[in-house]
Amino acid sequence: MTTTSVFTDSPAVGLVCRGCSATYPLAAQHACWECFGPLEVDYDATALAKVTREQIESGPDNIWRYAALLPAGVDAATRVTLNPGMTPLVKADNLAAELGMKALWVKDDSANPTHSFKDRVVSVALTAASQLGFDRFACASTGNLANSVAAHAARAGKPSIVFIPYDLEPGKVITTAVYGGQLVAIEGSYDDVNRLCSELTETDEFENTAFVNVNVRPFYAEGSKTLGYEVAEQLGWRLPRQVVIPMASGELLTKVDKAFTEMGEIGLVDPSEVKVFGAQSSGCNPIATALRAGTDEITPVKPTGIAKSLNIGDPAAGPYAIESVRRTGGWMADVDDDEIREGIRLLARTTGVFAETAGGVVVATLKKLLAEGRLDPEAETVIYNTGEGLKTLDAVTAGPTHQVKPSLKSVKEAGLLS
Amino acid sequence: MTTTSVFTDSPAVGLVCRGCSATYPLAAQHACWECFGPLEVDYDATALAKVTREQIESGPDNIWRYAALLPAGVDAATRVTLNPGMTPLVKADNLAAELGMKALWVKDDSANPTHSFKDRVVSVALTAASQLGFDRFACASTGNLANSVAAHAARAGKPSIVFIPYDLEPGKVITTAVYGGQLVAIEGSYDDVNRLCSELTETDEFENTAFVNVNVRPFYAEGSKTLGYEVAEQLGWRLPRQVVIPMASGELLTKVDKAFTEMGEIGLVDPSEVKVFGAQSSGCNPIATALRAGTDEITPVKPTGIAKSLNIGDPAAGPYAIESVRRTGGWMADVDDDEIREGIRLLARTTGVFAETAGGVVVATLKKLLAEGRLDPEAETVIYNTGEGLKTLDAVTAGPTHQVKPSLKSVKEAGLLS
Repeated sequence: MTTTSVFTDSPAVGLVCRGCSATYPLAAQHACWECFGPLEVDYDATALAKVTREQIESGPDNIWRYAALLPAGVDAATRVTLNPGMTPLVKADNLAAELGMKALWVKDDSANPTHSFKDRVVSVALTAASQLGFDRFACASTGNLANSVAAHAARAGKPSIVFIPYDLEPGKVITTAVYGGQLVAIEGSYDDVNRLCSELTETDEFENTAFVNVNVRPFYAEGSKTLGYEVAEQLGWRLPRQVVIPMASGELLTKVDKAFTEMGEIGLVDPSEVKVFGAQSSGCNPIATALRAGTDEITPVKPTGIAKSLNIGDPAAGPYAIESVRRTGGWMADVDDDEIREGIRLLARTTGVFAETAGGVVVATLKKLLAEGRLDPEAETVIYNTGEGLKTLDAVTAGPTHQVKPSLKSVKEAGLLS
Repeated sequence: MTTTSVFTDSPAVGLVCRGCSATYPLAAQHACWECFGPLEVDYDATALAKVTREQIESGPDNIWRYAALLPAGVDAATRVTLNPGMTPLVKADNLAAELGMKALWVKDDSANPTHSFKDRVVSVALTAASQLGFDRFACASTGNLANSVAAHAARAGKPSIVFIPYDLEPGKVITTAVYGGQLVAIEGSYDDVNRLCSELTETDEFENTAFVNVNVRPFYAEGSKTLGYEVAEQLGWRLPRQVVIPMASGELLTKVDKAFTEMGEIGLVDPSEVKVFGAQSSGCNPIATALRAGTDEITPVKPTGIAKSLNIGDPAAGPYAIESVRRTGGWMADVDDDEIREGIRLLARTTGVFAETAGGVVVATLKKLLAEGRLDPEAETVIYNTGEGLKTLDAVTAGPTHQVKPSLKSVKEAGLLS
């Protein structure tokens, strides 16, 4: 295996197939030529082992403090980024009390520049893509990813071309269109958009275009590791006992698990098992269904329900998410739309964090896993909120508790002066 | 003058009237009993002068690193806060190039927990209020302030009561109602809401209720100083030459000016004059109008236009904002709704920052001040974005650049394969 020269500063040494372990050089390739399995970034264990807490702590207050554990971005000048990360780890004492838990935190990724965890993966993907020579940035998306790619391209002064289904709500279209790149509405479903993007990567005209979640996907996926690193560092360089993570493709869960394992191996934290729990919406629960059925075979579904950012009916990393959960002794659950809405309200009311539907899925799943006795209320637990409530306002209904005339008399009659 | 014991750790020694310089102890009082002028926090200059860069740099990555320069919050256990601040100072090279400027930064306060600069003032106000014995938190608001107070109360596990005009858009109501406090819709205008809140502070039933922008307003206003401190620290402990700041009451502008002056006096930076420029919407421009007319007398207006978060028709700190601008050699301008929309798009397209209408006002004002020759394109300039575009989605219209069928043929016919 040879390392391409553009990645000389990186601890990454190549790509490896998750299916058959075939290896490839670091390039814009996401599937194995032998078995069509998904590729993952492979690291030089010796290089990783040299990374110290002091080195990380002296870095910037964003994901790039972990650059020496990522495939790209050690040289700050090469970064294509909005500098996401180091989002708050909120101690959720009120929520813990309501749920009868001992110690609970919310990792709040709505604090990222475009208000979702996608800024992490896009920053790593575009930094790698830029080093690989790509000079236009693209994605297939229905929301958070589109925002993030268009905003990154705007900051970098690079052209972007984002593909979306044509029937997206105007509110979601604006948040990407405002950045001024090309925005292509496709007369079809999200699956159609995805398929078209795969086809486009094969054309001469898109030879210099990086689709963050297609041709540079292995680099993109690594960005999610930072959601594991940060939690451990923010806890004072130690691992939590349990985490609850939302699942769309399932990739985020596997990468947080990978980050925890890596940190133990490197010696950044005392190695210990973190039980990993997966959260899905009942409108799109193929991974949780497979786990409960005791199989690795994911049966694709046609997604429904309000948790749209999690609605991937054929989740590519599903089998790996199941593996992580089984290995660590975790579990999965899914929750319906009413439970999701109640989860959003519960989180807001007890922590001041207003989450998008994916965050509601996580809170409601936490509640369900506690009720089922799957999750230990005595063990330190971190839940992940991956997006911002302002992006899914339609999901929640809430209104004034009182309506009165502008007079003390009216306020008194409403029972507010007693 | 006596200092109340609850503020023993604080550099603040009392309140002072901006009109007649009468002094008062630190308490929940916002107007002078002698002349009805507004009160401001007064500090012990010796205490402020002891604050060092090292002390600040060793603090947390939020506004509380400046606690020794604020009226409350030195003791972390006393803070009522979502830990806002240390938001990005974005080098805006693409925007500078488009405007023919040499060095331009955007201080992006949409990165705060509830995505506006209000989290800063609310954190300081509620921390002071809590020390003063208040145990319920309130405000009169039409948007950002309501969100922030309700979220702070939720995190702190305290009751809140927020007063809003009854005709607010449902989207704005949800973002406050979701936190679960009392939310009172008043059948009247924002002015009616404000007047009612002032009356309520005088009732026995609201004796323990802190209205952040009424009875504890002097503490609240000081939170805005952190927007000056952070810019100077993020520039490497030096002052910019020019700043452009949006004006509603005008208070934010005066406090950023105060912060820059303080830092020079204390020795945290080399003292130098920062020209302060004020930005208003043409639909609500009483401060800019007075400045241009060469007077200190503000003639109240009935606000119109899309920049609703700036729509204060009778701005309390207007005369002080005019004083800051005159003293430093700055200027003011106002911009109409079309210019505001174009300002939002220009900022998004060149920096990846999606601002609410107030941010559009600032960018459009920057452009106008450059065109008028009031602002030096060669001098280092910082502009302030105080809120998040997701909160004012209706202000902008933007859509797909292309619509095609899900086939390579259709993509080609649209001219995207050439």
